[in-house]
Amino acid sequence: MKILLVNPNLTQAVTDRVLQAAQAAARPGTELLAVTGSFGPQVIGSRAENALAAHGVLDLVARHAPGCDAVVLAVSLDTALWACRELLDIPVVGMTEAGLWTAAMLAPRFGLLTYGQRLVPVYRELVEAAGLGSRLAAIGAVDMTPEQTFSEPDRVQAAVLAEAQRLVDGGAEAVLLAGAAMAAMAPLLQPALAVPLLDGVRCAVGLAETLAHQGWMKPRVGSVSATGGRQAHGISPALAALMARPHRPPHA
Amino acid sequence: MKILLVNPNLTQAVTDRVLQAAQAAARPGTELLAVTGSFGPQVIGSRAENALAAHGVLDLVARHAPGCDAVVLAVSLDTALWACRELLDIPVVGMTEAGLWTAAMLAPRFGLLTYGQRLVPVYRELVEAAGLGSRLAAIGAVDMTPEQTFSEPDRVQAAVLAEAQRLVDGGAEAVLLAGAAMAAMAPLLQPALAVPLLDGVRCAVGLAETLAHQGWMKPRVGSVSATGGRQAHGISPALAALMARPHRPPHA
Amino acid sequence: MKILLVNPNLTQAVTDRVLQAAQAAARPGTELLAVTGSFGPQVIGSRAENALAAHGVLDLVARHAPGCDAVVLAVSLDTALWACRELLDIPVVGMTEAGLWTAAMLAPRFGLLTYGQRLVPVYRELVEAAGLGSRLAAIGAVDMTPEQTFSEPDRVQAAVLAEAQRLVDGGAEAVLLAGAAMAAMAPLLQPALAVPLLDGVRCAVGLAETLAHQGWMKPRVGSVSATGGRQAHGISPALAALMARPHRPPHA
Amino acid sequence: MKILLVNPNLTQAVTDRVLQAAQAAARPGTELLAVTGSFGPQVIGSRAENALAAHGVLDLVARHAPGCDAVVLAVSLDTALWACRELLDIPVVGMTEAGLWTAAMLAPRFGLLTYGQRLVPVYRELVEAAGLGSRLAAIGAVDMTPEQTFSEPDRVQAAVLAEAQRLVDGGAEAVLLAGAAMAAMAPLLQPALAVPLLDGVRCAVGLAETLAHQGWMKPRVGSVSATGGRQAHGISPALAALMARPHRPPHA
Amino acid sequence: MKILLVNPNLTQAVTDRVLQAAQAAARPGTELLAVTGSFGPQVIGSRAENALAAHGVLDLVARHAPGCDAVVLAVSLDTALWACRELLDIPVVGMTEAGLWTAAMLAPRFGLLTYGQRLVPVYRELVEAAGLGSRLAAIGAVDMTPEQTFSEPDRVQAAVLAEAQRLVDGGAEAVLLAGAAMAAMAPLLQPALAVPLLDGVRCAVGLAETLAHQGWMKPRVGSVSATGGRQAHGISPALAALMARPHRPPHA
Amino acid sequence: MKILLVNPNLTQAVTDRVLQAAQAAARPGTELLAVTGSFGPQVIGSRAENALAAHGVLDLVARHAPGCDAVVLAVSLDTALWACRELLDIPVVGMTEAGLWTAAMLAPRFGLLTYGQRLVPVYRELVEAAGLGSRLAAIGAVDMTPEQTFSEPDRVQAAVLAEAQRLVDGGAEAVLLAGAAMAAMAPLLQPALAVPLLDGVRCAVGLAETLAHQGWMKPRVGSVSATGGRQAHGISPALAALMARPHRPPHA
Repeated sequence: MKILLVNPNLTQAVTDRVLQAAQAAARPGTELLAVTGSFGPQVIGSRAENALAAHGVLDLVARHAPGCDAVVLAVSLDTALWACRELLDIPVVGMTEAGLWTAAMLAPRFGLLTYGQRLVPVYRELVEAAGLGSRLAAIGAVDMTPEQTFSEPDRVQAAVLAEAQRLVDGGAEAVLLAGAAMAAMAPLLQPALAVPLLDGVRCAVGLAETLAHQGWMKPRVGSVSATGGRQAHGISPALAALMARPHRPPHA
Repeated sequence: MKILLVNPNLTQAVTDRVLQAAQAAARPGTELLAVTGSFGPQVIGSRAENALAAHGVLDLVARHAPGCDAVVLAVSLDTALWACRELLDIPVVGMTEAGLWTAAMLAPRFGLLTYGQRLVPVYRELVEAAGLGSRLAAIGAVDMTPEQTFSEPDRVQAAVLAEAQRLVDGGAEAVLLAGAAMAAMAPLLQPALAVPLLDGVRCAVGLAETLAHQGWMKPRVGSVSATGGRQAHGISPALAALMARPHRPPHA
Repeated sequence: MKILLVNPNLTQAVTDRVLQAAQAAARPGTELLAVTGSFGPQVIGSRAENALAAHGVLDLVARHAPGCDAVVLAVSLDTALWACRELLDIPVVGMTEAGLWTAAMLAPRFGLLTYGQRLVPVYRELVEAAGLGSRLAAIGAVDMTPEQTFSEPDRVQAAVLAEAQRLVDGGAEAVLLAGAAMAAMAPLLQPALAVPLLDGVRCAVGLAETLAHQGWMKPRVGSVSATGGRQAHGISPALAALMARPHRPPHA
Repeated sequence: MKILLVNPNLTQAVTDRVLQAAQAAARPGTELLAVTGSFGPQVIGSRAENALAAHGVLDLVARHAPGCDAVVLAVSLDTALWACRELLDIPVVGMTEAGLWTAAMLAPRFGLLTYGQRLVPVYRELVEAAGLGSRLAAIGAVDMTPEQTFSEPDRVQAAVLAEAQRLVDGGAEAVLLAGAAMAAMAPLLQPALAVPLLDGVRCAVGLAETLAHQGWMKPRVGSVSATGGRQAHGISPALAALMARPHRPPHA
Repeated sequence: MKILLVNPNLTQAVTDRVLQAAQAAARPGTELLAVTGSFGPQVIGSRAENALAAHGVLDLVARHAPGCDAVVLAVSLDTALWACRELLDIPVVGMTEAGLWTAAMLAPRFGLLTYGQRLVPVYRELVEAAGLGSRLAAIGAVDMTPEQTFSEPDRVQAAVLAEAQRLVDGGAEAVLLAGAAMAAMAPLLQPALAVPLLDGVRCAVGLAETLAHQGWMKPRVGSVSATGGRQAHGISPALAALMARPHRPPHA
Repeated sequence: MKILLVNPNLTQAVTDRVLQAAQAAARPGTELLAVTGSFGPQVIGSRAENALAAHGVLDLVARHAPGCDAVVLAVSLDTALWACRELLDIPVVGMTEAGLWTAAMLAPRFGLLTYGQRLVPVYRELVEAAGLGSRLAAIGAVDMTPEQTFSEPDRVQAAVLAEAQRLVDGGAEAVLLAGAAMAAMAPLLQPALAVPLLDGVRCAVGLAETLAHQGWMKPRVGSVSATGGRQAHGISPALAALMARPHRPPHA
């Protein structure tokens, strides 16, 4: 089984970190292909960068999904998640969404933790759009940047642990680390926390493997069915071709 | 990996059907142990039977979970799901809940389909308690009994397919079959439906394997942490011992 | 009029306390019968104990409801409430639910207060399942056990009062004491609090008397109508007989 | 015990019908005082009439509540309910609200039925403001006027029964008749319906008796506590005096 | 274009302040007519005063709306908003509602700030009734009265600013000042706050101008369509005539 | 005042139609600049096209917003709305969002009508994300394409009118036409419908004029404040420069 890990920003260090976490999570026999965006935002830390990255995600999956069995969006805002599901015939899993479903099987209410107050409202919108707002205890943020994860790992880890503990004190019965740069941090900090500390990449790899193994059909009607035959211009040939391919039911 | 399949009602034919679906779903190397209730309702088709079956579920897991890596509740009302999570140190997955998380990764809104109008409100309560009410398009019911699944399979399948189509026409982009006796029916009917037809047992086995593989810690504080040291009387020695075991953090 | 008070745990002191509160609340002419569980958890302080107690509740009502005009569930998690309503032909009122309806007539938003942080999420689930989540200001907990109510009454009362005040400061315009062992504590502490302090037993006895007096029909269709003719094994003859009785409309 | 029934519209026939239903519902020893508005709308069938009737309700309670133990708002839009609770020191119960709490103890989901499509959105707003929107199956309407209840009782009753049945077919497990002019209709039609048919006046009288008997304190802080010392002009002396009375805690 | 500003309380200073804010907001060519209640509460600071003021609002619009192109309710509880919409054929905008729609275009989540804890629950009810509860970060209150706005402006402004900052610290990305007496305070305090500080009067004047310019039809069916032909007694001739006018579609 | 109308798809006929509707709506003195996408989807009729169009929207505003006083997103999925608000210092209004706020001032509950069942779930997600889900009566769709609006105007108009009537029959008290190609259709069909028929472009132009006139500050903190100093590659110089501009408070 081959899983595509899509990092739409332009920072190879994040892709490397994601791949490291994914390798630790994958089952034997799962092959991983991690790709980095070729245009768009250097890092995604704002609404505009996230909107722009949607194009990057679509471009990456158009170029690299052929030959894969599932896709993991290794971007913690699950950028263009449903667009990818519409466009592709294989399962697509967002790393934060995967963390939510996993948390929901471990704890009645859970917290989410990210970099910077700025994105807290954006994550709340994401959780509510997923429909799990009633299961969310709170969202916490550390006053650090993804870049500091690499330059000052000890300080970031200490801040993440303190904020996770604050979420637990406030009623969270599990904590999801949201931020691709936080991938691989969970196992390091888990021993110091009394509730499960979830890493979205680990969650997503497991769910992608599971969905690919189960082989559910893709909807042939409705808002995520393949459109086929759509025209777009000024984009990569791979993406234009994917949008323009004839409408064929995926399993027919 | 060894997964326990728990059917708390007293009908072996349902357990057999569940085991058959689970075997088709399990990965190579997964061992399955399917157990049937020894007291309680013959079948679960009402609120009282479901409430009574909670004792049966606890009793079955107390007797059979030791040595297993995960538990699947093979009862479509996910009876005593959080109680089992509190009581055990291994992952526990409910079959309908598993169907909901899976559906949520395949379709923006989905329908659920069961036996008899009587349980429709009960399933709605279950979906809302899981926090996914906003993702639910509708709940449908066929005017048949679980028993007829075995005695009149063709009629039940025709009715299920017609009702599933009605849900699709009303906006469901995936359909979950809720009813342990419906296990194994999904692959038969899928070719005739344009959206994914999900079977909770298949979903649950996959998620149980995944959680067991990932090895998340169980919460050591909060409403699903182990209590330890609790007294109960007039119940099986296995269950009494499980409730009374000393409070020890699971991973310490 | 005769009202059955059902305490499914095995602690007679709790039953006594409930009966005392119920007697203070009952109208002249109301006869009270308070019964204690004969198997199951010694006290209910966890999800597993609550799930197990459902069997105890059903067993108690099967044995003692005949001849009564209404049932009050004297267990603050309203264990098996809808199962009892399905099974019996007389009104059934849960003590916490009764407190919620009463609070809703006294205050726009109200708080709930219980023993131990562990059950806070469980009570939130209960309030949301009742549909009154938008009326809930907050849930507070004292770091005490039900047992301490009897052994250290002064400390428990001081803690309850302080936590109730904290709820009021946070916007609660009434406070419901949730915990059967707290029955009878409300009148003692009320003089020191500026908002109504509600006791679920008092609320439930009043509502049970009212429903029994009004004589509403039980639904003959739907998810709480009598099933009749159901088989169960390994349970008390009284409960088995109640579940197996022929399906007859209650008022026909 | 003396209960004030407040009909703020100017139609004595409605007051008479309400009093008849209340008398059938009241316990022995309960005295009933039914009063009719002296200014405002002849009947309440629109948003403007309801807004205007709020003044009438306040005026009636200012003049008649002294000496009473509880108030029932015998107007199916529960006009000025929380304003009365703020203004008075005795319990106040709205007839539709009372029907909702009662229905919530009899059925997991219930319907509401009224006169004319025009008020359907208004009742939905009322149910949602009470916080019980998730328990509402649907709202039905008969294409008749309150006046026809008196002039063409047979036609109105047939239409009400047909619409109630439609609500049941759609999933309602109890039906509340909302409309003061429908008071007393429930017992006539109940035999023909398979789920409880609730009359708000009956429900409200029972709850008012219960609250008055229980004697809960009125909040002394918050949004329904007495204001005291408020000035208003151009209104009846009784209402002006009630608003201007010194602020005194009700039970001090 | 002529806009009617309706202040139903009896305090001319509030009307003057509202008019001042409206003049600063209005476009060239917009004529403003500000009217003050002639009966009812001196100020509106409680549920009963608000309920009573509904009559005052209806009376004022009946007497002054003829000849106007739109109405602004210059009372921060948007008293009788939908009743006015039903009664009149011109657009009606509530000042707090207008602030909510405006805030919703500037900020994902916003706070609301008012005088006194007492009204905090009432504003929450208003926001939830408007359907925007999920966009509300929090409601804050200063422990001051509307009267102090005129007698101690510096102290009130300092308190408002401090509380607005507290809302921002808690996640509000815009703050709406709710209270007619706060009109005109926003521009003074805005320089000291990092998020938009909204004044409901300014918002409402702009929206009223816009709706009047756009000329949308009033619904001719449903819960806000004109009733026509309704009888009411003991009210002003203007209001009685407005309610009694023949039912005629507004644009026919 | 100059307003930028942004149509991110590549179909000039849609831009022309939008401009026509905007001109009919704009106040005297308002200058309109309508721009069409230069890359991306030919038309937006799917999730992938909408995700891709986000880049196009950002590119268009980066190139054309300088010198404008407000932006209207003339794309009925309000593509990249909050990203634009973050990126720009002038007001940005989405055409469907504008229709929702306007509908909310005209009708308690409203319907939305679009092209094709496929987008119905997407519009529901949009309304719920805006926080107005409780005000939504239903979403209807005509089985036509935007292209047919130009090639078969009579058939499309007949279908739209029939579907709008169906929404009214189901309880909608106003109807919003969602689809940029439907701009200008509302005035033609309004005479045949009994509730307001809203056109998002008309609504958005009015609100954009109003916000620009009012001159509210943009948030300087939080999730829509300017980021400044962000790097992105492979995009137009205008967009790269806008993202990279130094972080300066907009009004300082």
